Amino acid sequence: MTTAERAAAEPHDGDTGLLGPGWAGSAAADATSDTAFLRALLDAEAALTRAQAALGLAPAAAADAVTGAADPARFDVRSLTGRARAGGNPVIPLVADLTTAVGEPYGPYVHRGATSQDILDTAAMLVAARTLDLILDDLARTGRALARLAAGHRDTPMPGRTLTQHAVPTTFGLKAADWRSLALDARDRIARVRRTLPAQLGGAAGTLAAFAAYGAPDAAALTEAYAGELGLCAPLLPWHTLRTPVADLAGATAFTTGALGKLGEDVLTLSRTEIGEVAEGKGGGSSAMPHKANPVRATLLAAAARRAPQLAATLYGSLAAGDERPAGAWHAEWEPLRDLLRLTGGAARDAAELAEGLRVDAGAMRRNLDLTHGLIVSERLSAALAPRLGRTRAKDLLTALARRTHTEHRPLAELLGELIAVEPELKDLDLADLTDPTHYTGFAGALTDRALERR
Amino acid sequence: MTTAERAAAEPHDGDTGLLGPGWAGSAAADATSDTAFLRALLDAEAALTRAQAALGLAPAAAADAVTGAADPARFDVRSLTGRARAGGNPVIPLVADLTTAVGEPYGPYVHRGATSQDILDTAAMLVAARTLDLILDDLARTGRALARLAAGHRDTPMPGRTLTQHAVPTTFGLKAADWRSLALDARDRIARVRRTLPAQLGGAAGTLAAFAAYGAPDAAALTEAYAGELGLCAPLLPWHTLRTPVADLAGATAFTTGALGKLGEDVLTLSRTEIGEVAEGKGGGSSAMPHKANPVRATLLAAAARRAPQLAATLYGSLAAGDERPAGAWHAEWEPLRDLLRLTGGAARDAAELAEGLRVDAGAMRRNLDLTHGLIVSERLSAALAPRLGRTRAKDLLTALARRTHTEHRPLAELLGELIAVEPELKDLDLADLTDPTHYTGFAGALTDRALERR
Amino acid sequence: MTTAERAAAEPHDGDTGLLGPGWAGSAAADATSDTAFLRALLDAEAALTRAQAALGLAPAAAADAVTGAADPARFDVRSLTGRARAGGNPVIPLVADLTTAVGEPYGPYVHRGATSQDILDTAAMLVAARTLDLILDDLARTGRALARLAAGHRDTPMPGRTLTQHAVPTTFGLKAADWRSLALDARDRIARVRRTLPAQLGGAAGTLAAFAAYGAPDAAALTEAYAGELGLCAPLLPWHTLRTPVADLAGATAFTTGALGKLGEDVLTLSRTEIGEVAEGKGGGSSAMPHKANPVRATLLAAAARRAPQLAATLYGSLAAGDERPAGAWHAEWEPLRDLLRLTGGAARDAAELAEGLRVDAGAMRRNLDLTHGLIVSERLSAALAPRLGRTRAKDLLTALARRTHTEHRPLAELLGELIAVEPELKDLDLADLTDPTHYTGFAGALTDRALERR
Amino acid sequence: MTTAERAAAEPHDGDTGLLGPGWAGSAAADATSDTAFLRALLDAEAALTRAQAALGLAPAAAADAVTGAADPARFDVRSLTGRARAGGNPVIPLVADLTTAVGEPYGPYVHRGATSQDILDTAAMLVAARTLDLILDDLARTGRALARLAAGHRDTPMPGRTLTQHAVPTTFGLKAADWRSLALDARDRIARVRRTLPAQLGGAAGTLAAFAAYGAPDAAALTEAYAGELGLCAPLLPWHTLRTPVADLAGATAFTTGALGKLGEDVLTLSRTEIGEVAEGKGGGSSAMPHKANPVRATLLAAAARRAPQLAATLYGSLAAGDERPAGAWHAEWEPLRDLLRLTGGAARDAAELAEGLRVDAGAMRRNLDLTHGLIVSERLSAALAPRLGRTRAKDLLTALARRTHTEHRPLAELLGELIAVEPELKDLDLADLTDPTHYTGFAGALTDRALERR
Repeated sequence: MTTAERAAAEPHDGDTGLLGPGWAGSAAADATSDTAFLRALLDAEAALTRAQAALGLAPAAAADAVTGAADPARFDVRSLTGRARAGGNPVIPLVADLTTAVGEPYGPYVHRGATSQDILDTAAMLVAARTLDLILDDLARTGRALARLAAGHRDTPMPGRTLTQHAVPTTFGLKAADWRSLALDARDRIARVRRTLPAQLGGAAGTLAAFAAYGAPDAAALTEAYAGELGLCAPLLPWHTLRTPVADLAGATAFTTGALGKLGEDVLTLSRTEIGEVAEGKGGGSSAMPHKANPVRATLLAAAARRAPQLAATLYGSLAAGDERPAGAWHAEWEPLRDLLRLTGGAARDAAELAEGLRVDAGAMRRNLDLTHGLIVSERLSAALAPRLGRTRAKDLLTALARRTHTEHRPLAELLGELIAVEPELKDLDLADLTDPTHYTGFAGALTDRALERR
Repeated sequence: MTTAERAAAEPHDGDTGLLGPGWAGSAAADATSDTAFLRALLDAEAALTRAQAALGLAPAAAADAVTGAADPARFDVRSLTGRARAGGNPVIPLVADLTTAVGEPYGPYVHRGATSQDILDTAAMLVAARTLDLILDDLARTGRALARLAAGHRDTPMPGRTLTQHAVPTTFGLKAADWRSLALDARDRIARVRRTLPAQLGGAAGTLAAFAAYGAPDAAALTEAYAGELGLCAPLLPWHTLRTPVADLAGATAFTTGALGKLGEDVLTLSRTEIGEVAEGKGGGSSAMPHKANPVRATLLAAAARRAPQLAATLYGSLAAGDERPAGAWHAEWEPLRDLLRLTGGAARDAAELAEGLRVDAGAMRRNLDLTHGLIVSERLSAALAPRLGRTRAKDLLTALARRTHTEHRPLAELLGELIAVEPELKDLDLADLTDPTHYTGFAGALTDRALERR
Repeated sequence: MTTAERAAAEPHDGDTGLLGPGWAGSAAADATSDTAFLRALLDAEAALTRAQAALGLAPAAAADAVTGAADPARFDVRSLTGRARAGGNPVIPLVADLTTAVGEPYGPYVHRGATSQDILDTAAMLVAARTLDLILDDLARTGRALARLAAGHRDTPMPGRTLTQHAVPTTFGLKAADWRSLALDARDRIARVRRTLPAQLGGAAGTLAAFAAYGAPDAAALTEAYAGELGLCAPLLPWHTLRTPVADLAGATAFTTGALGKLGEDVLTLSRTEIGEVAEGKGGGSSAMPHKANPVRATLLAAAARRAPQLAATLYGSLAAGDERPAGAWHAEWEPLRDLLRLTGGAARDAAELAEGLRVDAGAMRRNLDLTHGLIVSERLSAALAPRLGRTRAKDLLTALARRTHTEHRPLAELLGELIAVEPELKDLDLADLTDPTHYTGFAGALTDRALERR
Repeated sequence: MTTAERAAAEPHDGDTGLLGPGWAGSAAADATSDTAFLRALLDAEAALTRAQAALGLAPAAAADAVTGAADPARFDVRSLTGRARAGGNPVIPLVADLTTAVGEPYGPYVHRGATSQDILDTAAMLVAARTLDLILDDLARTGRALARLAAGHRDTPMPGRTLTQHAVPTTFGLKAADWRSLALDARDRIARVRRTLPAQLGGAAGTLAAFAAYGAPDAAALTEAYAGELGLCAPLLPWHTLRTPVADLAGATAFTTGALGKLGEDVLTLSRTEIGEVAEGKGGGSSAMPHKANPVRATLLAAAARRAPQLAATLYGSLAAGDERPAGAWHAEWEPLRDLLRLTGGAARDAAELAEGLRVDAGAMRRNLDLTHGLIVSERLSAALAPRLGRTRAKDLLTALARRTHTEHRPLAELLGELIAVEPELKDLDLADLTDPTHYTGFAGALTDRALERR
């Protein structure tokens, strides 16, 4: 056997997420599986027949029959997948199977007046709605856990780091409040999209003409009844080529993974062996080294944040959807949209676990504040010395002292103390206060308080 | 000279958009130039000193002096560019030059308490605000022009096309209403972001500590005064690493170019030599062929829509911004954000011109409706025949007739007419009505009316 | 039940490609499934023990025991997926299960000295190798089919189209030769990467230190033995953070989907109802309209080409892989790499089928050549008239005639004939030749011949 | 004035890179400026006339006249930019200006037979060739500097870090050899593309028909003469819609920025205040804090690596270029290609400077090796203890000791020493050797030597 033959001989058993530890096993994984899509497709078909029945366009018994038949357990996903290829979408074989399942006399009411895209787009919105609800729950958990960290560490000083270098002190409370602020921004964006997810109903080319041919007097009433059955919004226009809902999902999910990615990046940095200011509640093991406790949740958050923007780009790219149904732009949306929902759902889960379990080492933060021998407060000293010595002389003096802390390995406070003894302009400076990094956290506490008022 | 030496000998004169016909020469081009950024940087510096003066933290005369000196004409962009390299951002040399320009005694009040990122982020938001205003104007023009087209062609029938094939009829009015719907969605998203653009003020690591050192009693008051001077929002927290505003700009601008890209794609298709249903008011010429009138505006819209999503992806990627200022993620934002603003501004201009000048050939639309010899109404015939013949027999019959229209090149209406003569179940069908494509536009008119009610 | 609870209650049954008609059911789908990855992971583990045995670092019986136990049928993918989450990768639970399966006394030889990344990277290269072989087969089929089309239609004239407008004539032979040229470029790039795919072996941090601790005298010999067992290349250095192979795969696969996307785009355009110059051998049906035959293969090619570049971007982004194993950049590669292999495998299959089945309508091409009433040869007329009338007068004349063909709906040849009767400079022009679009295909034939010489 | 009016009133002076410190001021910046493109466009036009003259299709004096007139100093880039908008590309106004500059009688030989895309694509390849030469120079510098670091630090031990945690020791020599390996991979990919950059010549629709109309007997001869004049390759086919050269440039440049991004990321991490193992030769200053020395070059490398993949994605996306010239896909290439060349050129410069100036603190590396109290050699101890205690007992023992090093803050060696005293199986262990991190660098030295043999 060639390798090609060997590969071809391997059956495709269905992927459960072996390469996706960031989302596998999450509720979002279940909510976005092929089976979940199958259920949503069937929900859409059944809702359409019920809506027609509600408006007197189909018998009530037809609605019951289709609803009863639309049970995912009665359909074979693998077979549908195989037959989806011919027409390029899974609705065509599904309609055939569902019609058979309903049987006579109500089979003809299945999918009546609709086009594949009506059903597939509606199913995607149902799946999105269900997944966004899960994400909102986990973002709420994350927000609560981060609020506790922010309040509990309101006054825990730590080094502020810019371009990888210690800059001035900050607090862990403010840092946690920052993370929470992003989680709330994500929540707001997800919730906004969640409220607007529309059902899709347009018929062959978006005019709902077939529904008219079957007797519908009014497009709006039918669309509203259909959307109402599904708990989705009724759109103003069919949106076969007006992909606003998909682009909005792209934006909100890419935002969310990015926002949680910030939490991930910071935890990764603060967990470094040399820094050690935080640790995941339960780190991951290693296949080779017994001592390692890896920041796995943070790693997976960082990985998700690297992938989501490009998936979103594909969806934004599909906005330029030609004609009344595009040949390719629409088809290019399906898997990236699912991937984004999954990745975001997995990231929200990991963020919640990370935030709830994070261990904070205030002692390490305090020790690290001293690593620059006091230079971390040089900005404050500039402000204090400038009025006494003039801006230029103050700056030159501090630059010289900074150099000496490095070469002599002596604290800035000590060097400055020697200077004060001989410089009359400086003699009443409160050196102990001025050089204490824990006294130079600015408005970190007040900012934290204000940020925590946001609900 | 090697080619490398030759290239190196070429001075960089400043790019004016030779490779960017989609945005060059637009108001957005001016609003996003290096000079425009310089102005915004200076506006931010001056506003900061004025805000400090307003709170009594600096003399009023310092505010006047800095404001007076902050005139872009007095600064050399090329020199700033050259000196930006050492520290990796243009604010460092700008502060030096502005301090010199202010001179004694107020020079020390320049940039006092701030960090480079405060100024650069604020400038980016000012540039964004100014460019979004231009974009909103052009989206409004586009929306108005498309509303006129939709109303004027409410009942102009044309082929609806799906996966490149004629499906069922639609109207040009609905198509224009669709385009307008996307333009309004874009307007809403741009306007939402426009209202929330924040000033940036955090100091070295986001604690505003230096402002405290210089006497500020309250972070919020200073931030509000500063934002007020600039016409921007006061943020709840410094957002050095909370990049929500940048991500929101990415989403709104990528949405807008994509939404206008749909207009572009459709105009490109409908302008094809074989279709000829629309034409740009003033097409572009060719360097080789005197007869050509290219759909240039539509082409440039399509090009912008291909680029914006990936630029937005880079900005979404920068959400995962580590520490109190990231080493790279922030720097990676500057040019893509500017590019997005430019591309979107140029696209909004081109869309407005395209919509205002579009020529519509209703006759060509009518002729194209007949290209399938009537098959474009086959869906309607299915609906009409099924109750009389049963669904299966109706479908078989239509499939057979469809084949004959192809092989015999005869209209479906004619073939159907022969059939009616011999099929008693069909004898009272109003064939003229049923097979007239202009009678099968469904709810297109009503949808257009409803869509036009949206403001 | 809330929707969230309902979603969570849905079991994840394994995805088989319901949303991926572009790759589902292909040999590449099988070659990249979770099961295929499991097989490759086991292949890597077994090869490692065999390589150690070959160098005398492990008993031959251990190699036999591990090889015998490494049978995918004995492992539970779903369970591995579930347990992969804790450590963030599937190798950790796999090593546990494989060690158990091997049992005493040879269990300790499983994975000895290796790190998870050694096994996962090697497995990814095995999967890539197997999938690239399939892709090469389908590209070869595509190339052969396109060569037949090019040769068979070497002299079939058709309109050349630029910016959607008829420009000058070309031939379908040259068009097919162009498509083939891209397919061969893709083949060359895939084949180049295929030849270089390396095994991975570095141990915990890329120094192979544990292998030394277990007695290996030489890193190179062990790596070569291991790679030899797998049919992969032996790398010069462990490449845990030197992601050249992954980036090369990204480039070659994105190239291939893009190159085949050109074929897809062209078939979509030429299949348009109004153009009708080509048709897929077997188009796809519609859920609503009996007459439709959609260009489904071309649509799926276009969809793949829209997705691959962004997936590749994520992989290029992972080149900046920090430390000795990055926290996130590596994890972000797994699914996009698999997706790219799948999409490309599916696209190569669809391209082969499309090329083999494509129906060409030379009559439609000929008819379309006349749509511009002869303007399609205006470039040629410019060249012919300029020497006689001067460039400016020739251009003005042709521009005027072009306008008249539009307004009077008369052929350019006819208008020109009238002119020749009164213009002495033009009287010996061979108008029949000059205005015949089929006589103005330039070097299309010669270019086609030359292109077909490439093997 | 509204802000929109104000923005519009700001003239666009030409951008010199104020927002691009990563590339501004580099030789690549000059080689890719609007002026450089103007020069390349003129070079292409002049070469075309010369090639025609060489084949007897134009007078030698025409070639001289066009070559003489094709001096960028005689053209106004800003005016060309303004006029490029109408036709959507800059070649149309350039041909007009060049024809005027040549004047009678040779003006008509300007651009004769060509299409805008012939000239613009050729110019892009010239600009690419010139920029790639610069990049190759800087990659060579980078490679040499990294080779010196690798050789000089062949045996300098440092912590190997995986998922942010200390794993096992490695050497700085191997790390530098790794960086060099990527720089050489980048060099190889850039050089491969550089050798194949083709001239473009196809005429209006890729058939070179106009050249035939003007008397060319042979397409290949003309293309070869033209390419020869320019120092570019002669392509087998016109590549107006066969965008292999552009995609190859995308891949090679994205690879290069990513490869250098790895260097950047590592330098950023190793420069962290807490780690301090390397420092940039000359760090960047801060606008607020006198003591800071930021890793600016590394930051800009990281920023470039974040942007290039998405720019490349846009170019890969343009492979699906419809028709004989696409409406949008081609236009979408111009600026991203230039941006990629610039970013890569700037990154290569920064990498060279970074590598040449990098300061290495071997003492800090040594100190950091002890941060885990010896756990960094736990893998080695596993290997040593397992044969004596059995794998399970060895693992349990080490896990317990690892916990005690944390809780008791005592070195692993000391705890192990106590154990050896009471465990007879362990008594002859050479504890000093086994627990010395500098003795557990595996094959790092040999790998470094081998890697340095690569040229």
